[in-house]
Amino acid sequence: MEEVRNQQVIFKDYVNGFPKESDMPLKTSTTISLKLPQGSNGVLVKNLYLSCDPYMRGRMSKTQGSYFEPFTPGSPITGLGVAKVVDSGHSNFKKGDLVWGGTGWEQYTIITTPQTLFKIQDTDVPLSYYTGILGMPGMTAYYGFYEICAPKKGEYVFVSSASGAVGQLVGQFAKLTGCYVVGTAGTNEKVELLKNKFGYDEAFNYKEEQDLDAALKRYFPEGIDIYFENVGGKMLEAVLLNMRVNGRISACGMISQYNLNQEEGVRNLSSIIMKRLHIKGFIVSDHFNLLPKYMEMVIPLIKERKICYIEDIVEGLESAPAALVGLFSGKNVGKQVVVVARE
Amino acid sequence: MEEVRNQQVIFKDYVNGFPKESDMPLKTSTTISLKLPQGSNGVLVKNLYLSCDPYMRGRMSKTQGSYFEPFTPGSPITGLGVAKVVDSGHSNFKKGDLVWGGTGWEQYTIITTPQTLFKIQDTDVPLSYYTGILGMPGMTAYYGFYEICAPKKGEYVFVSSASGAVGQLVGQFAKLTGCYVVGTAGTNEKVELLKNKFGYDEAFNYKEEQDLDAALKRYFPEGIDIYFENVGGKMLEAVLLNMRVNGRISACGMISQYNLNQEEGVRNLSSIIMKRLHIKGFIVSDHFNLLPKYMEMVIPLIKERKICYIEDIVEGLESAPAALVGLFSGKNVGKQVVVVARE
Repeated sequence: MEEVRNQQVIFKDYVNGFPKESDMPLKTSTTISLKLPQGSNGVLVKNLYLSCDPYMRGRMSKTQGSYFEPFTPGSPITGLGVAKVVDSGHSNFKKGDLVWGGTGWEQYTIITTPQTLFKIQDTDVPLSYYTGILGMPGMTAYYGFYEICAPKKGEYVFVSSASGAVGQLVGQFAKLTGCYVVGTAGTNEKVELLKNKFGYDEAFNYKEEQDLDAALKRYFPEGIDIYFENVGGKMLEAVLLNMRVNGRISACGMISQYNLNQEEGVRNLSSIIMKRLHIKGFIVSDHFNLLPKYMEMVIPLIKERKICYIEDIVEGLESAPAALVGLFSGKNVGKQVVVVARE
Repeated sequence: MEEVRNQQVIFKDYVNGFPKESDMPLKTSTTISLKLPQGSNGVLVKNLYLSCDPYMRGRMSKTQGSYFEPFTPGSPITGLGVAKVVDSGHSNFKKGDLVWGGTGWEQYTIITTPQTLFKIQDTDVPLSYYTGILGMPGMTAYYGFYEICAPKKGEYVFVSSASGAVGQLVGQFAKLTGCYVVGTAGTNEKVELLKNKFGYDEAFNYKEEQDLDAALKRYFPEGIDIYFENVGGKMLEAVLLNMRVNGRISACGMISQYNLNQEEGVRNLSSIIMKRLHIKGFIVSDHFNLLPKYMEMVIPLIKERKICYIEDIVEGLESAPAALVGLFSGKNVGKQVVVVARE
């Protein structure tokens, strides 16, 4: 039976504070058979593209009360990725199929719950897009913006982490809807992208603002109808002061809080009452039933170049730990992807 | 023209911190004609019952970003009340009609926007109820609980300020819906009321708890589906940790914050995402169109003694300032009402 080397990124142990590369050592000594064991109804895949996502920080804590189980110390990191089926014990999949879904940070993975995988139909777009615009982050932007915020033409939209995997899409969706949209990001390079690439009406570098409330009042003299929340903390505190009556907040993530041992307190929550705000947290995987509807909308937009998507692609499994760590200091520009193999 | 004395409670000036009785001096020197001026399309009323409500604190601050205008220094306090029409320039009202709505803290008031008044049809219930169960607090409990929280039988409900004008009703509505409901209040006397009078399954005195999170875990080992938020601050912080997936928070008030110069920060907001929470702030006056529907439901419940309502009634306009001040230290037991006149 053919055995191949199976390089892996191991989750060393539970993490406090910011994760470091050394929390995710590379293990090169493992091998794997390219045939599934007799009777398996799993799927053996070769991993092509791995996705680095902020929610993964939650899985690095032992007591994190998160929506996903913590990673298992000593085992490979798991996450979303694009992969190619090498052997299948499941009737929905056959050798050569391209899929996206939950997989391991390694070269080959046996997926024991193949019913959670999505088969990739459309291959005349970059395959890596299935970790981003055509995958979980895309659905996140779609669900959070359209379904939760129910945007109307002419409304004022604010997006934090606005050039990230999700934010860059929210900004573009908002423009397609006829909204006025302002984004914030943490470098001037990203601010330029927001304005020149994604079509944000305005953008600012939050790290250069002494007073976030004043910055928001400058960009939204009439207030904010829709806030797409990716960061939490002080930004949320300032946003609450600037929401308009009947404003909506789609709570997608709070990356500013993930590496703190105790969350920051957020003031101005009485605005929720005064302004009759609607705040809705969501986990996109609850809404994957809408994926076909989203694909039908977004694939033509990509092909007609009415929407664009920026990826930050690093090469090789060995680059994955640094790529994930970089998310939490905003090192990535656009969706952070790791190429394990191109086919 | 008949002139009578018109005792008034004057709003002295904008308030910082807790309001004091001396912020609302009594003025006994004013007189008023019991006939409207020629051509007026207002309504002249004799005030019977005045309502003391926590939202009134917001109107005592100059820069309060509230949903209502601040009070006018030197003029009478305004609020909700039950009154009898003495003279009317408006076709909807005639002398002798009983009404409830916005009026002044004085014996007689000329209401210049009579279209905002509600005519009282049902008089075989205590008239004072139109400041409480049959008025704004009743609608608040109804809208916040039924419309926002969409309760289902068997769900776990938590109510803060649970014996107050609104909370006592939320608890009873929750029991009528078949929910498990726990309330919190600030005295042992109120805790007894919650359990013995309003039918709460359990109740506790939050002032006797060192650790609100631990208290909630004791009463809700399986977590909270619905939180009716009246207090904000540390209670909200603890509740967020104990919400269940897809939980709903009806944000009605945050009385713990109203007298602070700066709001407390609230931690644990990442629970909004992890637990997919739905948080909705509301101002009940936006929803008074539902009043007939609510009346149809609640009046039979009162008459059949399936629901009860506790009022804390003080006599005389001169008692009004202390009654309002008392709300913010939880001195009132049940709905705080001031009797100006009984008919």
